[in-house]
Amino acid sequence: MAETKRIFTFLLRFIAFCTTLSASIVMASSRERTTVLALSFEAKYSDTPALMYFVIVNAIVSVYGFLILFLPSKSQLWRLVVALDAVFTMLLTSSISAAMAIAYVGKKGNPNAGWLPICDQVRKYCNQVQGALIVGFINVILYILFFLYSIHTTLNPLLLERS
Amino acid sequence: MAETKRIFTFLLRFIAFCTTLSASIVMASSRERTTVLALSFEAKYSDTPALMYFVIVNAIVSVYGFLILFLPSKSQLWRLVVALDAVFTMLLTSSISAAMAIAYVGKKGNPNAGWLPICDQVRKYCNQVQGALIVGFINVILYILFFLYSIHTTLNPLLLERS
Repeated sequence: MAETKRIFTFLLRFIAFCTTLSASIVMASSRERTTVLALSFEAKYSDTPALMYFVIVNAIVSVYGFLILFLPSKSQLWRLVVALDAVFTMLLTSSISAAMAIAYVGKKGNPNAGWLPICDQVRKYCNQVQGALIVGFINVILYILFFLYSIHTTLNPLLLERS
Repeated sequence: MAETKRIFTFLLRFIAFCTTLSASIVMASSRERTTVLALSFEAKYSDTPALMYFVIVNAIVSVYGFLILFLPSKSQLWRLVVALDAVFTMLLTSSISAAMAIAYVGKKGNPNAGWLPICDQVRKYCNQVQGALIVGFINVILYILFFLYSIHTTLNPLLLERS
């Protein structure tokens, strides 16, 4: 039972490592050159601070996810992992919120501020950003699960059992 | 010592209740009517989904913060509060990230996407949004402190002491 649980945790951690890495890569490789009214311009993630933040956070979390794969299951450091999971869950939540707020303006525009949607001009770029955001959303869910699991194993918030 | 700690916690929780409530109210009351090129338009928080999200989250957290003021210090429910603090810290982080991403575009614009800054036209509105964001930032810090404190009292992530 403990062995199955260990393998399952390892597998989920490995999936989280892959998804954070791919979210970072997909977002970082999103660029498209287009021509509007004889003016050529290139849309890329580094134009927007919020999308850069998303790339950086996902890259950092994927490094953390990689290192944690090699942590022995009996290690006392797993108690520290609870706190680290909380920090990285928060960073992921923050980065995807900022990126989604900007992506929403990119897709729908904001008529009151006079910001026009750009997704009609750079459709490929927009789809790639959208893909990265979907993967980023999976990352947030995975890390919330890790965090809840850590909380569950180290303390018992539902009062089913007194410590 | 335990009494001082209890009063200190109550005081901090009360401050957090006041700041979340005021962040919500300041943001929700931000509106300014201006005239650009003979066109009159009104800037208000509800034009932007990210700012509405900020108002809603801060309102919910202030209700939670109010209810928790009446929780007896000996209650077993404090163990559940660890999980709730985590959830609300995440919601606050998410809402301020989204609001800051949009506020940044409002202030600096995004030349590559052709989005012009609007803060020169609606200076009062922008200052009010900025004020709400600063208070929102204090809320996030306060809730991270509550969360770290709860983690510290219920488990010991720094391994100073085995459970």
